[in-house]
Amino acid sequence: MENQDVLQAQGGRAMFACGGQSVKFPVPVFIRESASVVGKKEGQGPLAELFDMVGEDDLFGCNTWEEAESGLQRDALHLALSKAGLHSTDLRYLFAGDLLGQSIATSFGLAQFERPLFGLYGACSTCGLALSLGAMAISGGFAEYAGCVTSSHFASAEKEFRFPLGYGSQRPLSATWTVTGSGAFILSGSRGSRSRAVITGITPGRIVDFGVKDSLNMGSCMAPAAAGTIQQNLQDFGRRPEDYDRIVTGDLGSVGQRALLDLLLERGVDISAQHMDCGIEIFDAKKQDTHAGGSGCGCSAVVLSAYILKQLEEGKWKRILFVPTGALLSKTSYNEGKTVPGIAHGVVIEHVE
Amino acid sequence: MENQDVLQAQGGRAMFACGGQSVKFPVPVFIRESASVVGKKEGQGPLAELFDMVGEDDLFGCNTWEEAESGLQRDALHLALSKAGLHSTDLRYLFAGDLLGQSIATSFGLAQFERPLFGLYGACSTCGLALSLGAMAISGGFAEYAGCVTSSHFASAEKEFRFPLGYGSQRPLSATWTVTGSGAFILSGSRGSRSRAVITGITPGRIVDFGVKDSLNMGSCMAPAAAGTIQQNLQDFGRRPEDYDRIVTGDLGSVGQRALLDLLLERGVDISAQHMDCGIEIFDAKKQDTHAGGSGCGCSAVVLSAYILKQLEEGKWKRILFVPTGALLSKTSYNEGKTVPGIAHGVVIEHVE
Repeated sequence: MENQDVLQAQGGRAMFACGGQSVKFPVPVFIRESASVVGKKEGQGPLAELFDMVGEDDLFGCNTWEEAESGLQRDALHLALSKAGLHSTDLRYLFAGDLLGQSIATSFGLAQFERPLFGLYGACSTCGLALSLGAMAISGGFAEYAGCVTSSHFASAEKEFRFPLGYGSQRPLSATWTVTGSGAFILSGSRGSRSRAVITGITPGRIVDFGVKDSLNMGSCMAPAAAGTIQQNLQDFGRRPEDYDRIVTGDLGSVGQRALLDLLLERGVDISAQHMDCGIEIFDAKKQDTHAGGSGCGCSAVVLSAYILKQLEEGKWKRILFVPTGALLSKTSYNEGKTVPGIAHGVVIEHVE
Repeated sequence: MENQDVLQAQGGRAMFACGGQSVKFPVPVFIRESASVVGKKEGQGPLAELFDMVGEDDLFGCNTWEEAESGLQRDALHLALSKAGLHSTDLRYLFAGDLLGQSIATSFGLAQFERPLFGLYGACSTCGLALSLGAMAISGGFAEYAGCVTSSHFASAEKEFRFPLGYGSQRPLSATWTVTGSGAFILSGSRGSRSRAVITGITPGRIVDFGVKDSLNMGSCMAPAAAGTIQQNLQDFGRRPEDYDRIVTGDLGSVGQRALLDLLLERGVDISAQHMDCGIEIFDAKKQDTHAGGSGCGCSAVVLSAYILKQLEEGKWKRILFVPTGALLSKTSYNEGKTVPGIAHGVVIEHVE
């Protein structure tokens, strides 16, 4: 049962906005191919065998962590293109971002593809942002192929947001471990031979600020935003949690997961049977000492590419809601005593026969 | 004469991609209203009387430069909404960004509007990025109204990219002065009573790296990207420079302008009669000691809102190409000895009767 609160056509154009903040695409957008590249630690975790490429050390042959992260993006996009049998010139537009100040991993990682670039910043939600805007561009008829790329790197992120690695700072159990990895996705309006996963709708998220200031408990900072986006998605599309095989958050980790489930239960929504978190899946938290789980805008991207899309392509899952979550802080905002607001962007992905 | 190299429709959808990297919108997107808020220095420049709001001091009553910049975004969007007679709930999506690490001016500036936010980063080209994606969302039928907001602040930018203001560092004459200001734009598929300016096409830009490393000569860093986007736009739409009343770059300044004109002349394109640069217009460089001109993603936004759109609305200009330019660097990339690549996003804006 779709929510019928669809905007009226204006100025001669059909409106595909549905409900309060979602879009239902008139024609589904195919995820033609994807690729995942990860670091050494991710290659020792539970999903190790599913990734396309695992680095032997996290510098990937580069001189700096930032260059290594740029290399991750480059490798992921090259791989996705080659799987799809496409050349970079086939991509009309790139939608990409990372966690670093001024998105330098993206700028230096994707320049050599020489494609028009829409630079994005949504903290760890950026994979959802890229897929949403990429799908809009395809569905609106503005591009035949679009590439969506995001990355994060443990060491570049620690340097950007926390302390020099050499300090060996201790971390509370609520902290997450930034994933070293990049995922790339090729979207298209046409199917190609193998595509079995399509984006059918999006629920772009609002900034939600519950006043949490602890940047070492980002799960709790982001859970309210995830709850808001999930609830809005169910409402806009007239769905119940069981209409999804999985409702997948990006990097809430075990602490944020508890907060999310509780927040939604308070509002009468029980997603405990469907909920899955990429940050919880990617590491064996106890054995790998990653505390609450993985995080970073590479985390949800590589788990989507390596694990989730495979379930959809094989038809084990028919429909999922992918909700990468972002914590909107910087060194400066933290030092100035600001809160850490969250944002979460929802993408509906379905299996097609 | 439109370039006929239009992509074939795929999967049942019409394709509006034109030429190598541009989009020609099937139905023009109205710029319903806009607003500009600037700092004290901008309010003493040649465009002083055109801005909607001028601050008395650059803290705007806040405790930090970053909060002041967030306030600029908030004020600009409030003003634009009120001019348009709209409420924030009328905006389906926001497209916004700034220059600070992790875009905190935007996160803390726009959260209270409680609208879904697409966070963007394109350095000083972000106004073009926001208008391009906003126009795609409107033209594709995904939103009835969209808000596009960008900002910069002299003091927050100096802190982010250069030296503490207290050092009183000297600046070379090629340096630009970051504009304290924010521009907000309300896009819609429907006209409203007063709209006289429409977005008819876009040419999203690629990253162009000529190997320049001098972050105090950003005009030269960005000029190659601007040249590429302008040349591509002319080619994709089958136009000559004289088909535009103005070709407006964002913040090349006087040094970058020379580089741009020379680069294009080398390729047989003479835009000297049409070229205008927002960074050159906003300050009286000699009297105001701003060296090569203004810069920042507030610069092109406030000049577009306060000056350029007025010429289009009054019909003095019929068609312009707006090309905000961005320098893709961070403190970290600079310290690691990287180059400063550029990017420039082109937006075609026309007068309608």
